[in-house]
Amino acid sequence: MITALDHIAIAVPDLDEAIKRFLEDFGLTYKGQEYVESQKTATAFFPLPETQIELVASPDGEGPIAKYIEKKGGGIHHLCFRTDDIHADVAMLKEKGYQFLSDAPGPGAHGCQVIFIHPKSCGGVLIELSQPGDDHH
Amino acid sequence: MITALDHIAIAVPDLDEAIKRFLEDFGLTYKGQEYVESQKTATAFFPLPETQIELVASPDGEGPIAKYIEKKGGGIHHLCFRTDDIHADVAMLKEKGYQFLSDAPGPGAHGCQVIFIHPKSCGGVLIELSQPGDDHH
Repeated sequence: MITALDHIAIAVPDLDEAIKRFLEDFGLTYKGQEYVESQKTATAFFPLPETQIELVASPDGEGPIAKYIEKKGGGIHHLCFRTDDIHADVAMLKEKGYQFLSDAPGPGAHGCQVIFIHPKSCGGVLIELSQPGDDHH
Repeated sequence: MITALDHIAIAVPDLDEAIKRFLEDFGLTYKGQEYVESQKTATAFFPLPETQIELVASPDGEGPIAKYIEKKGGGIHHLCFRTDDIHADVAMLKEKGYQFLSDAPGPGAHGCQVIFIHPKSCGGVLIELSQPGDDHH
């Protein structure tokens, strides 16, 4: 029986540079590294509290998901970090050189305010920041 | 301040079919749907307990991650579900028609037993199943 989402794996060309991003820029907790000999793979872990899988589809064939499906058929589209102050985090990350897909946060699901960081600022990963609205549960 | 990984978004061409996969085949809890008008996007949520981001790199330029980096530069590589009985789950999923990248589970990080489901069985998403070893913490 499936009991948890154990991890989300992100392939990175430079492990030290990526550890720096998630530790210093995004402020995650760092649990350490392990080399998996059988896969010739170096790994670094950042534990996180409860999360969720969100399926996203384009019922009308419009919007950003329609474009993605047309190009790739389907797949992991983005990660979303929750924040308690999206404007402060956007300002902090802009100061560090991060680029965003829009000028300012806008409305997302559940009444959240959301903004996307450009994948070229995050090693090819599309990362969303989301601040819960009053109706968040 | 970033407080959580709010979600991992998976783009799917057919929402009902994908809900069926995560609900019936993987046995996740289903929280419901929401249509996000501003993005013309239908969403469906599956809450999950604590998780972690795993960065994976190829320090020697060998193994599956090296091939991925060479082809794509970097990005979200796979999701991993934890299981308490990997052999039973592999048998159950094989019966439902899922294909795997190897015949049987093998050793992964932290002394886990792991196996990968073929992305073509999961709408383009590479999904790993992992059963913790005795030294899991």
